[in-house]
Amino acid sequence: MTAASLDIERYWSTIEASAAIGVGRPGGLSRLALGDADRDMRDLFVSWCKDAGMAVRVDGIGNVFARRPGQDDSLPPVVVGSHFDTQVNGGRFDGIAGVLAGLEICRALDAAGHATRRPIEVVDWTNEEGGRFSPPAIGSSCFVGTHALDWAYARPADDGTTIGAELDRIGYRGTAPMGQPFDSYFEFHIEQGPILEREGMQVGVVTGGYTSHGMVVEYGGETAHTGPWPMDRRRNALVAGARLLVAVDEIGRTAALTGGKATASRLVAWPNKSGILSDWAQVTCDTRHEHVDAAEAMAEWMRRAAFEAGARADCDTRIVDRWSWGGDLFDPDLVALVRQTSLDLGYRTRDIRSQAGHDAYHLAGHCPAAMIFTPCKDGITHNNNEDCSRDDLAPGLDVLLRCVLDRADR
Amino acid sequence: MTAASLDIERYWSTIEASAAIGVGRPGGLSRLALGDADRDMRDLFVSWCKDAGMAVRVDGIGNVFARRPGQDDSLPPVVVGSHFDTQVNGGRFDGIAGVLAGLEICRALDAAGHATRRPIEVVDWTNEEGGRFSPPAIGSSCFVGTHALDWAYARPADDGTTIGAELDRIGYRGTAPMGQPFDSYFEFHIEQGPILEREGMQVGVVTGGYTSHGMVVEYGGETAHTGPWPMDRRRNALVAGARLLVAVDEIGRTAALTGGKATASRLVAWPNKSGILSDWAQVTCDTRHEHVDAAEAMAEWMRRAAFEAGARADCDTRIVDRWSWGGDLFDPDLVALVRQTSLDLGYRTRDIRSQAGHDAYHLAGHCPAAMIFTPCKDGITHNNNEDCSRDDLAPGLDVLLRCVLDRADR
Repeated sequence: MTAASLDIERYWSTIEASAAIGVGRPGGLSRLALGDADRDMRDLFVSWCKDAGMAVRVDGIGNVFARRPGQDDSLPPVVVGSHFDTQVNGGRFDGIAGVLAGLEICRALDAAGHATRRPIEVVDWTNEEGGRFSPPAIGSSCFVGTHALDWAYARPADDGTTIGAELDRIGYRGTAPMGQPFDSYFEFHIEQGPILEREGMQVGVVTGGYTSHGMVVEYGGETAHTGPWPMDRRRNALVAGARLLVAVDEIGRTAALTGGKATASRLVAWPNKSGILSDWAQVTCDTRHEHVDAAEAMAEWMRRAAFEAGARADCDTRIVDRWSWGGDLFDPDLVALVRQTSLDLGYRTRDIRSQAGHDAYHLAGHCPAAMIFTPCKDGITHNNNEDCSRDDLAPGLDVLLRCVLDRADR
Repeated sequence: MTAASLDIERYWSTIEASAAIGVGRPGGLSRLALGDADRDMRDLFVSWCKDAGMAVRVDGIGNVFARRPGQDDSLPPVVVGSHFDTQVNGGRFDGIAGVLAGLEICRALDAAGHATRRPIEVVDWTNEEGGRFSPPAIGSSCFVGTHALDWAYARPADDGTTIGAELDRIGYRGTAPMGQPFDSYFEFHIEQGPILEREGMQVGVVTGGYTSHGMVVEYGGETAHTGPWPMDRRRNALVAGARLLVAVDEIGRTAALTGGKATASRLVAWPNKSGILSDWAQVTCDTRHEHVDAAEAMAEWMRRAAFEAGARADCDTRIVDRWSWGGDLFDPDLVALVRQTSLDLGYRTRDIRSQAGHDAYHLAGHCPAAMIFTPCKDGITHNNNEDCSRDDLAPGLDVLLRCVLDRADR
């Protein structure tokens, strides 16, 4: 066991500094991916890492890596990461707490004069939230090769620009290679749910994720006048989209009896104006359940609801995108390491499944990966009232340090 | 009876020229209010009117008036008007057929050397459709004093500009006075419904409008994560808005049994993104019925649906705007003049109520007003397949000429 120890006040001071960048509603952040505030946060992080003697590199999708060398620097690194971007009404911890945890570990090792055998890297993944560009987690998924860079560059924002243009504008379209091997990947994150706090648990050992099925559905109808056009000839795509939204919410409320969730979070239509029916609408929706079979059933229920909504509004229905993630995706040995370390350190510990998506899900197909959850107030997240304390974060951070050292000194 | 006679080919050639300005989908137009195409159409109209020796003036909201003097030019003018703007997927006749009808009448009188006792004015009203700026018919309603100019200038477009800025940009913020007395106002318009065509009628004598009640409803909820946040704590404003959309559509389908219509044509929400619940949504909706009592009942049904939708999604509900129009708003004498003129000319004629809103509704509170409807193909409008022929338009145009002369030579 090394003598390295965390300085929670030093860590907290980096959280506080980051909370001043991209200020949104009171107490919250609105640090959209690749916007000015994201650039400022990246710049500050890079300066901190360089001050700590770390080498910084940026890859083609703007992921920022800071490297603390190993005694055998040819070995694949142990990587700690998460993301700086937030939703438009986001909090001060979702994402960034995990990146700054990696920095704090490196600073603690420096303070202890501890040179690890393997290198350690700390990474900020681009556009995890999907709050400005779709799909979410495009930085980590490009890194592991799920998406091609040129496709990613062309992803549009609702505000009219693209990922490629914004990477250039903020100076974060780098040239570092992607997809290189990692020894392992750890992501430290607030739970974004109420379970740990409610049960008085200090550390959540993330065994995997709720199985989530998502889709983007498009409806095709016909424009017409909102007055004279007969009701029985209307093909209002906006109504089709609204029917799907309501149906998905009802699927979620029924499935909630067994812990399921379903959400339609986005509806856009055209022309979507007074006086004219819309001939196009697009809905983004997903279902989530802890149990794979229930998740499958919910997804099928949602799929049928999509076509029923279209049929009732006499619109054409097209599922233009589908995805699924979750399940038991984390490495059993790495999960066992997190669990045992937490128990050894005497923390109140429980296994937990993530109900949110994370960059770690994408890394789990690339290298052994695991996540550590910490409690947060009332489970509130994606909201300016997201909150947690030093005491909430310290145990998980301690577990993270020990796990990283365990891997890096192998 | 004057010797003046219409030249339907001359009229049709102006329709064809106008259909080349703001071309949209095949056969249709996308000539949004105060955009470049609207400017080009105004410029062309002004040049035609000047060529005809008419004096052109523009008022503060961009309404364009072309004046053919009367023998006693101190008398209030007989006015013929409608609008150049279209919906984003609009047709070639909705609006402009009525303005160009006024020009054709003046040209016919010039050709016949007929000097009327009273002046005749032809007017294009700004932003009738509401397809770019809300509310619709802002030009005519400002003219009669319903809205203040400064309020109108500040009306925003979804594309980020305002009415005031666009008036300046296209050079149509004029200085002519508003609200001056009219002898009478005639609006010639395609029916935008299937009734005249279906019954083989040539002229529709518009007695009034369906009674329409509209409102803008806003929902307030709370942003939260689409994954972990419990279903029973969700306050997703987007779901509230979707519930209202569906309810309004169902009101319309039920009321259709007695000829009613109900439409929710616009839903906007914030943030309206993947991964986060929306804490704000706004819906624009209206109900229409031929009978006042039924219209009132539908409006009350819609109002309750708005609050029920909010309650079911646990959101706050606020009706932020309400309006109503329609009823027997046209001048009985002027309507009788249109009816008798059409019968005297031997046209197949019926009384009809408009199911759409028109500038004439606003003028009806300012001076005696009437509308003349002409058949159009399948009742299609607010769609690029909107269509009609010279033969559809000629009878109504003939009636318009005789009615205008009747009034102008009084």
